[in-house]
Amino acid sequence: MKALVYHGPGQKSLDERPRPSLAAPTDAIVRMLKTTICGTDLHILKGDVPTCEPGRILGHEGVGIVEETGPAVATFRPGDRVLISCISACGRCAYCRRGMYSHCTTGGWILGHRIDGTQADFVRIPHADTSLYRVPEGVDEEALVMLSDILPTGFECGVLNGKVAPGSVVAIVGAGPVGLAALLTAQFYTPAAIIMIDLDEGRLDFARRFGATHTFNNARDDVVGAVRALTEGRGADTVIEAVGVPATFELCQDLVAPGGIIANVGVHGHKADLHLERLWSHNIAITTRLVDTETTPMLLKTLAAKKLDAAALITHRFTFDQILEAYETFANASRTRALKVIISH
Amino acid sequence: MKALVYHGPGQKSLDERPRPSLAAPTDAIVRMLKTTICGTDLHILKGDVPTCEPGRILGHEGVGIVEETGPAVATFRPGDRVLISCISACGRCAYCRRGMYSHCTTGGWILGHRIDGTQADFVRIPHADTSLYRVPEGVDEEALVMLSDILPTGFECGVLNGKVAPGSVVAIVGAGPVGLAALLTAQFYTPAAIIMIDLDEGRLDFARRFGATHTFNNARDDVVGAVRALTEGRGADTVIEAVGVPATFELCQDLVAPGGIIANVGVHGHKADLHLERLWSHNIAITTRLVDTETTPMLLKTLAAKKLDAAALITHRFTFDQILEAYETFANASRTRALKVIISH
Amino acid sequence: MKALVYHGPGQKSLDERPRPSLAAPTDAIVRMLKTTICGTDLHILKGDVPTCEPGRILGHEGVGIVEETGPAVATFRPGDRVLISCISACGRCAYCRRGMYSHCTTGGWILGHRIDGTQADFVRIPHADTSLYRVPEGVDEEALVMLSDILPTGFECGVLNGKVAPGSVVAIVGAGPVGLAALLTAQFYTPAAIIMIDLDEGRLDFARRFGATHTFNNARDDVVGAVRALTEGRGADTVIEAVGVPATFELCQDLVAPGGIIANVGVHGHKADLHLERLWSHNIAITTRLVDTETTPMLLKTLAAKKLDAAALITHRFTFDQILEAYETFANASRTRALKVIISH
Amino acid sequence: MKALVYHGPGQKSLDERPRPSLAAPTDAIVRMLKTTICGTDLHILKGDVPTCEPGRILGHEGVGIVEETGPAVATFRPGDRVLISCISACGRCAYCRRGMYSHCTTGGWILGHRIDGTQADFVRIPHADTSLYRVPEGVDEEALVMLSDILPTGFECGVLNGKVAPGSVVAIVGAGPVGLAALLTAQFYTPAAIIMIDLDEGRLDFARRFGATHTFNNARDDVVGAVRALTEGRGADTVIEAVGVPATFELCQDLVAPGGIIANVGVHGHKADLHLERLWSHNIAITTRLVDTETTPMLLKTLAAKKLDAAALITHRFTFDQILEAYETFANASRTRALKVIISH
Repeated sequence: MKALVYHGPGQKSLDERPRPSLAAPTDAIVRMLKTTICGTDLHILKGDVPTCEPGRILGHEGVGIVEETGPAVATFRPGDRVLISCISACGRCAYCRRGMYSHCTTGGWILGHRIDGTQADFVRIPHADTSLYRVPEGVDEEALVMLSDILPTGFECGVLNGKVAPGSVVAIVGAGPVGLAALLTAQFYTPAAIIMIDLDEGRLDFARRFGATHTFNNARDDVVGAVRALTEGRGADTVIEAVGVPATFELCQDLVAPGGIIANVGVHGHKADLHLERLWSHNIAITTRLVDTETTPMLLKTLAAKKLDAAALITHRFTFDQILEAYETFANASRTRALKVIISH
Repeated sequence: MKALVYHGPGQKSLDERPRPSLAAPTDAIVRMLKTTICGTDLHILKGDVPTCEPGRILGHEGVGIVEETGPAVATFRPGDRVLISCISACGRCAYCRRGMYSHCTTGGWILGHRIDGTQADFVRIPHADTSLYRVPEGVDEEALVMLSDILPTGFECGVLNGKVAPGSVVAIVGAGPVGLAALLTAQFYTPAAIIMIDLDEGRLDFARRFGATHTFNNARDDVVGAVRALTEGRGADTVIEAVGVPATFELCQDLVAPGGIIANVGVHGHKADLHLERLWSHNIAITTRLVDTETTPMLLKTLAAKKLDAAALITHRFTFDQILEAYETFANASRTRALKVIISH
Repeated sequence: MKALVYHGPGQKSLDERPRPSLAAPTDAIVRMLKTTICGTDLHILKGDVPTCEPGRILGHEGVGIVEETGPAVATFRPGDRVLISCISACGRCAYCRRGMYSHCTTGGWILGHRIDGTQADFVRIPHADTSLYRVPEGVDEEALVMLSDILPTGFECGVLNGKVAPGSVVAIVGAGPVGLAALLTAQFYTPAAIIMIDLDEGRLDFARRFGATHTFNNARDDVVGAVRALTEGRGADTVIEAVGVPATFELCQDLVAPGGIIANVGVHGHKADLHLERLWSHNIAITTRLVDTETTPMLLKTLAAKKLDAAALITHRFTFDQILEAYETFANASRTRALKVIISH
Repeated sequence: MKALVYHGPGQKSLDERPRPSLAAPTDAIVRMLKTTICGTDLHILKGDVPTCEPGRILGHEGVGIVEETGPAVATFRPGDRVLISCISACGRCAYCRRGMYSHCTTGGWILGHRIDGTQADFVRIPHADTSLYRVPEGVDEEALVMLSDILPTGFECGVLNGKVAPGSVVAIVGAGPVGLAALLTAQFYTPAAIIMIDLDEGRLDFARRFGATHTFNNARDDVVGAVRALTEGRGADTVIEAVGVPATFELCQDLVAPGGIIANVGVHGHKADLHLERLWSHNIAITTRLVDTETTPMLLKTLAAKKLDAAALITHRFTFDQILEAYETFANASRTRALKVIISH
């Protein structure tokens, strides 16, 4: 089969690889229909993820058809159309029992990282019963690919951890795909205002189209002053960090209201300053989270009920043969204005 | 009347001052029976609290008898024995409505800080209806003084924010009075283990007597290794920071388990490093809080039911004439082994 | 002044009465601008509320202008435009501290019940600081009248107690004004489906216009079968009872899914059968609540942010001189298709 | 092997039966070490559980040694000592994902009910990975048998659903084994008072020994008056129904405070009256639950930490040969004063 293989920092190619086969009774083999590329795939290609070794097939998102199942798989049969979660979950370890699938002792984020991933004709999915989801009737499969990772990430790490509530003020720092995913799902809870902050005017355009009530460019605007002005000096109830660098995390500390929450979504490579000399008495919470995808069933219901415009995140479409071009487009998002790309087999 | 007055960094004296009088219809004047000294009083005396101006009567804790009430005070009458909360709360601003009394727009921590405090024969208490609590029948008044500040602080900022639960593992960094208050109240929720960490062997002795299941001296022990060994490598579910310096806050980051909480109690004067490059994916929360004393009614019930040995925190007793000596004893805790002192009129 | 006075079962008239005056330092006198009529007013007129004595001025809803304030009122000044809450709250008793204002020991639902109410030119409001709300800039005052009682009732007793969540299925039994208020506010949480059930086709028309995804007439349809069919046999996650008779409460027991909630909103005059022989093992909750109006600040924010179409509930408008006609229209809702009437001074 | 077999209402015998064998890849065969008898086993024998057919081996509690595992069992190996949960959980259906194992679509309470149970030399356990728990080091195995059903039942259905909190007042109606299990585990949360109510003085003796602060005999005492007197007229914050008849459920409605919870634990055979005409405005909740045993890991930790005296529930011990005598003893508890019996192989 064809597969997109990581060959060390800066190197990847579309190679011929053997089809995967069942390795455990709880595995399934899925024939891929559609996949996408994640910011994390770019991180791997920069060499930032040393746990991902050369030779690895990348990708942890997608929709496909079950080809084969191990004898212990009870929920799926060959021919079933399925959504693949970016997180593999055994469903029985102490972390899985708490819904903390990201820390599953034999799963977590392993696809396209510690085991071969979804940017291929076929993929082996461990713990299939608790890592795949049946495609609901009448749901657009392209939209569905957005539920593998980006929408649960924005929703769980940003919106749920941030306790977005009716009438509240939400500020999201970073209007890239994951910040926009938080913006889309924050609207489930009807906040009074959603303020998006980014350096890129193109992304702030998307933000306005996706429901932001206010947008600011932190290259140019006095963001802290503006958020204070909008909130009678208090700050935002929920601040979502969706970039992953110290400067934006520190900006969040200036934006949060007393009693508020900073919900970190960004993947950080460096420590940041935490201004406890000011925040110790502000009754705030800071949360971190690797997406658990425990809300996938809930998101599937909102998608099936037409309450979530997941497809809005898709800007470009490619065939699997064109995957190198898809990477090129996605990696140059400020020029191409790409959010998420769909790659179809 | 006599009053302990702050005269600028390093200077205090027991002065003659006029008796306070009612300034608002919601005020009460309380004749003090018993008070105590808080670590915050020492901070003020070091000059660390610039919002406290010279000439201020110190003290924000105590028990007394209502002497006089404003016309709008509905709950108390002269002669009522009352507990004074360290936090004044109007009960009607947006913060008070949420139980976040520490941020009351006309209250918060003002006693012995922005207005004259309780280390005097009499004190004026604003918002009396929502800042005083009737002394329950049969409750020891010395024990009750511990409910003005230190016990709600350890309980709300440490135990409640830290979500201590039956069977969980709690680590408390700092075995001073507030860390010990967290230790006492953590036991309301029956954790499996409470690990106390301090540099002072005398305080670790107190900790063992107060119910710690394990104690470590971080001058000597490999605390991180020891906590990992006790938890199959995971770390503690709840980590309570009860010191207030960067080094201890950073230690907490090494002690917390995935899915756990760092509940900050310490008063910090400096920023700390937050290791987001490691913690971003650990599904943790960090909380800060200035005590709200919204749990005072709950704590009064546990005290009246003999479920809380608040008096255990009291190590020394003085008369109000001896308050300078009481300060001396409290300020030299490592030598005197003082936890909390009681000062009686 | 003019006032609508209850004179015993079946009897009311528009009488001349003296203007109210301040009775406590925490009182305010409000000059009424707009009021409305509640189903509870009709209950009183039927003689169903024996705690309401003849001679009482009715009404517990409205918007007005502060005319005079007692010396302890800190938040409002003469000339302030205010929303009147149907619940008076002292803000300091144990119930108020928990946000359970409905059970305030010196307040609760007293307006137009135990003390004179808002269907008059002026009204005395006890505990003014915690029972009035400033009218936000740019908010329509007619819409605002819906926030005195009906919207917080539907929201708190139905939607919040019922834990409506994104993707969930909600069934509301009763499409009268309060059921429709639950329907409007349930949408804050983006459920997948909201099923409205009533005997009156006109009200089901309103329901469809207000966002119901499915409507059933329980005079004609097999409602239980239909809800099961929509939910793969499970039932609804949240069932809201908004009628107040045994038959509808018992219907709710047939509609609720395992793990679901029946949130009672209806005012009941009789006991109902609870089918514990079936429900004991269904992991359900049943909740009851007299509205606390503790969410009024949240609802004001959603209204100001144009996220809540409160005005949609208003079907008829009258001047205060026409209040007897307004009662006539409201009492004959099935003929007049009245939901809420606005009565303006 | 030997097995206790149900042969229809009123009939049981200790029979010779073939050893069970693996039926699914996720099964385990467990050799029983210790089991017990549940009130539910007596219900079956009375013919009250029509879903349990004659020929069924009874029993859903116990501790044993894994004898054999299916190829998909990942957590256990032959020779492992295990606790058997009364609830079988697949860990992957929508109910299991929510921790609602009692409603597992291929599990739930099936042992000794729909499939053969634990009152035998061997038992087949479906979904072994998520239905068995490793015996912690140093834990008494007899005490552990109490964690199969009775302690999680009292804890989940009574204490957790009832939101027992520090300083609160708990009333438990019924001091049988499950009421006493609620009493033991309620103490995890340090309520101010736990009031036990029963008709049997012997059981009230147990209650006092197990930590009840007050006991009342509802054959003799004015229980409602007594609970009101203890709570300044309010009633209990948490009322736990642990009997299962209409009269006791109706008593609970008289005992609950405004804002309180009635947590039903009892297995009911008949409907009860729900006094909505009084309770509609009392802001209460009523909960029902079939035990999920999702707290078994938590209970194991409290047991291992010596925070739960589970063995206190054991009053009698038998060998498996004496199981008919054990039934006799357990079924005549008022005479024998039996709570739980241990049956050892």
